[in-house]
Amino acid sequence: MNTQSISDRAGELGTEKLLLRALAGERLQRPPFWLMRQAGRYLPEYRELRQQAGSFLELCYDPALATEVTLQPIRRFAMDAAILFADILLVPQAMGRTLAFREGEGPVLEPLRHREDIARLRPGAIHDTLAPVYETLRRLQAELPQAVTLIGFAGAPWTVATYMVEGGSSRDFANVKRWAFEDPDGFARLIDALIEATADYLAAQVTAGAEVVQLFDTWAGVLPERDFERWCVAPVRAIVERLRAVHPDVPVIGFPRGAGAGYAGYAAAAGVDAVGLDWTVPLAWARDVLQPQAAVQGNLDPRYLVVGGAAMEAEIERILAALAGGPFVFNLGHGIVPETPPENVARLAELVRGFAGGDDAPS
Amino acid sequence: MNTQSISDRAGELGTEKLLLRALAGERLQRPPFWLMRQAGRYLPEYRELRQQAGSFLELCYDPALATEVTLQPIRRFAMDAAILFADILLVPQAMGRTLAFREGEGPVLEPLRHREDIARLRPGAIHDTLAPVYETLRRLQAELPQAVTLIGFAGAPWTVATYMVEGGSSRDFANVKRWAFEDPDGFARLIDALIEATADYLAAQVTAGAEVVQLFDTWAGVLPERDFERWCVAPVRAIVERLRAVHPDVPVIGFPRGAGAGYAGYAAAAGVDAVGLDWTVPLAWARDVLQPQAAVQGNLDPRYLVVGGAAMEAEIERILAALAGGPFVFNLGHGIVPETPPENVARLAELVRGFAGGDDAPS
Repeated sequence: MNTQSISDRAGELGTEKLLLRALAGERLQRPPFWLMRQAGRYLPEYRELRQQAGSFLELCYDPALATEVTLQPIRRFAMDAAILFADILLVPQAMGRTLAFREGEGPVLEPLRHREDIARLRPGAIHDTLAPVYETLRRLQAELPQAVTLIGFAGAPWTVATYMVEGGSSRDFANVKRWAFEDPDGFARLIDALIEATADYLAAQVTAGAEVVQLFDTWAGVLPERDFERWCVAPVRAIVERLRAVHPDVPVIGFPRGAGAGYAGYAAAAGVDAVGLDWTVPLAWARDVLQPQAAVQGNLDPRYLVVGGAAMEAEIERILAALAGGPFVFNLGHGIVPETPPENVARLAELVRGFAGGDDAPS
Repeated sequence: MNTQSISDRAGELGTEKLLLRALAGERLQRPPFWLMRQAGRYLPEYRELRQQAGSFLELCYDPALATEVTLQPIRRFAMDAAILFADILLVPQAMGRTLAFREGEGPVLEPLRHREDIARLRPGAIHDTLAPVYETLRRLQAELPQAVTLIGFAGAPWTVATYMVEGGSSRDFANVKRWAFEDPDGFARLIDALIEATADYLAAQVTAGAEVVQLFDTWAGVLPERDFERWCVAPVRAIVERLRAVHPDVPVIGFPRGAGAGYAGYAAAAGVDAVGLDWTVPLAWARDVLQPQAAVQGNLDPRYLVVGGAAMEAEIERILAALAGGPFVFNLGHGIVPETPPENVARLAELVRGFAGGDDAPS
């Protein structure tokens, strides 16, 4: 199955970019779908390629390998979108910070804790480091079937800042919160540098072939309301404005994971075309409160994709029934986990593609 | 300051139990307050006593020491409520599971992964193990000033089940979710055993002197909507019903941390008198959607209590202004962290006690 070529899937896919239609606010007969972390360790062909490649970062910066990895899930499952294989922490690295990935430990950065360190960041000089990413997008744009939309992405400023300040993953976000709460004007300089770098990075991704971009705010859910507005909503809006000055029509998906009831304010004020829902968001609430303001994307718990079977199918049907009557992109509520059986992904693809209850929209 | 006796604070406190009035739905001129984990490592007198006591569990099961630890923050800060010093994992231990606390590692339990292990649990035999907890409550009831309400507590079934199945803390809840998603009928037996034990434990706490009980559902926020309803909302409602059959009037506070927009369904259906809000809950939403259904309690980010100063004061004022116009208990959005300077807690107490904008209610 993994030896199937991309062009073999073209017939199945048709020629329409369903993702672009959904993000434009259309209700479709069946929603488009893709899965966060659809390229990754759950696929044997990915694990094989990883063994040949060097480190995870070498893979991100190698256009031939990154293109291959991005295409792997499309060959198997014919998703409606391919998302660039890269990492949200390439941006701080391109701004001059050290970055390493240690197996089983996650990312390690030199912690940034002082205003002077912010002054040394180079948000205007990121393209030298990130040029291979743009090359990957150009190759993908040339290789993907017409119906498959190419998604670029970046981390949202708050989430990237948490890794930069804490020096990696965190359970309590003690240092970054202390800084944001105690010295908001100083912390704002870090966020401003990230806004500039991220907007320029996304603009270059679009120039290179990305047709949609997603901003991942993985740690949006650790902030109280006012700080969420200041450090998550406002920076995303600023990025969207800066990006739109270069590419006025590119659709943007925002994913403020864990925002809870704060999703409502985000959908209203962040300026995005679609909001990615984590798996805790109640569906009727999403339909009534969020979907009138933006397309929604989500939100199967990836653990249902591990379990599979009737339990997974019932969850998929529940999500489709609740949200496919409005502008909707089927996805998970967070990334695929490595122990996911690929056959469960195949079943998911089959169910979503076979869904025909969305609406009376022309198909 | 820590040598001040409880009776020295009696004048400051008056004779009214403000917490009971707020939980009965009254709007008060100034809200009552207490703080989750108000007895703990941020207090030098607690750290001193811990060095003399043996393990954390020995402290929980020693009525003299547990009473002393519970009273320590009341002496310093004259909160309106004292919460029993104990741990949510005493219940699985009392049901027959092994439990240890390793310094810096958190709790360690023998993982429970099979239906046969559930059959061996002894929900009806918990009182032998838990008798010292009831003795602590009797001593506290005798020692506390009249105005200070005594709060008992337990973990909610879902949260306790996560520790029992995973064998301790977890980042991804892989095992407990797999069980709940794949074999909900089997998993329901574990939840049912926890409902029985927890309701009986709380009923015995009330008999021993607890005037209010709180159910901590620390990991409510990791479940998708339907599972949240089944494993968090319904079990809490079942506990409240079973408890009310013995003690019809005891107020119950539910704390479904991380429930996001799911807080609305919880407030409507869990049968609790008050809902504890984590720090991410937007205040206007809490006021408009939750407060008409239940008293609310919360929700300062404990990291503001570490930072202190003008930033903390502005957050406290913002919360008071938004919620004190309805039935409200001032608290944190989760427990005090060890690095909290006690003087910041003193300042918080001063601000809440000095607040007079709540309403025209008789004081």
